[in-house]
Amino acid sequence: MDILRAQERRIDSETLVACSRRTSLRCLGAVSLAFGLGWSPEVLSGAERTTEKPNAMNLNPRLFSFVGGRNGPWKVLESRAVIGEPLSPVERLEVVAGNVAPGSADAAWVLRGATSNDRYVTRSEKDQLLARQPALGRSEADCAVLIPIRKNAKWWSLTTDERRQIFEERSHHNAIGLEYLPAIARRLHHCRDLTEAEPFDFLTWFEFAKSDTAAFDRLLTRLRASEEWNYVDREVEVRLFRGS
Amino acid sequence: MDILRAQERRIDSETLVACSRRTSLRCLGAVSLAFGLGWSPEVLSGAERTTEKPNAMNLNPRLFSFVGGRNGPWKVLESRAVIGEPLSPVERLEVVAGNVAPGSADAAWVLRGATSNDRYVTRSEKDQLLARQPALGRSEADCAVLIPIRKNAKWWSLTTDERRQIFEERSHHNAIGLEYLPAIARRLHHCRDLTEAEPFDFLTWFEFAKSDTAAFDRLLTRLRASEEWNYVDREVEVRLFRGS
Repeated sequence: MDILRAQERRIDSETLVACSRRTSLRCLGAVSLAFGLGWSPEVLSGAERTTEKPNAMNLNPRLFSFVGGRNGPWKVLESRAVIGEPLSPVERLEVVAGNVAPGSADAAWVLRGATSNDRYVTRSEKDQLLARQPALGRSEADCAVLIPIRKNAKWWSLTTDERRQIFEERSHHNAIGLEYLPAIARRLHHCRDLTEAEPFDFLTWFEFAKSDTAAFDRLLTRLRASEEWNYVDREVEVRLFRGS
Repeated sequence: MDILRAQERRIDSETLVACSRRTSLRCLGAVSLAFGLGWSPEVLSGAERTTEKPNAMNLNPRLFSFVGGRNGPWKVLESRAVIGEPLSPVERLEVVAGNVAPGSADAAWVLRGATSNDRYVTRSEKDQLLARQPALGRSEADCAVLIPIRKNAKWWSLTTDERRQIFEERSHHNAIGLEYLPAIARRLHHCRDLTEAEPFDFLTWFEFAKSDTAAFDRLLTRLRASEEWNYVDREVEVRLFRGS
């Protein structure tokens, strides 16, 4: 249930500015707000935001930080570059709901992204995904994989219909993913439109039981063989296990 | 050419953290980088970002801040709520390429957004738009209008195909906009996936000559009458004129 506990922590960005000048990531827990398990991007998307003066407490409620370093519930089993540059090697990973300053002393790297509305899914695909996808934090899901991905300028210069054609009609991204539900839980985070320039466009996060590892490997192989992956210019795979 | 000058200013976010504790927005100019006129979102989208440690200088290169207060080249002629809450009244507006801290003493409000890849445009529509749309900063375009918009949770829970159906097939958003080119220059900024929770989902920015005001008014009336606007739950219209 580590992920769920992480989701309960909300981080004050002013605290984090201060934190980044200290030596420990631990102070991040100084400010916390309840973060309900029933949360979904849609629920938080609208009416709550009524002020035009965002303040230190006013973070994007869909923001998550993936903190690579010496702490956190997830032990890094392997970290390798699939395409382009690797990430610095780290021992452990923590997933924090909120914003962690990249300069935090205990973090070798921090990757941030926000869950958002779907981009390339049709109603029929979405309904199937919603019906079959499991929640994160299942007790049996002791394996996780973080795969940060960047797509190239050519991808982003395409229009939505062209991207959808490649993503689904020719690469079957949704259809392939659907085959591995409910074994593989996933959450997609978007980085490209954050306030900061992030090194990746997406952070993909997967959770599954150890016994489903071969199925997960097969899923990865099929997606990486697709036309869509011609547009990926950086990809790192970080394999994790919950525990010490 | 005020907008173009504003685009030449790149802001160091650490400077801005310091700024927010002082009394003047003027210090924002302390750090500036060249910002080429030939810039487009696609050009900056990929290969430049190679580090996994974003630092203070590492802002989203597509980020703009709209600063309402007592300074800036744009005089506010009128600011009114079209749907939902108004913005605080201000005298002037400055458009800054980069991140301005909302707490800046001279600013009554700061709205931020980033230009991004197109969401609901087909290749044929995009090609027509690119062929006809003028650049910002034309010397004859002495009128500008900032229209921040928020869409409701229902909109964001729709899938892309459903949103596209409403946006274009039933509301003709692109087709209507195309009729007013090249008179009306525009730039769209996305706020929904920034690191902070912003009060609006989009900041739309228009520039045109005073003699095209009636055409612009007609454009607004037609878009606001469309089905798409059923999903708008906050909209403010800020009319601006360049000069004193």
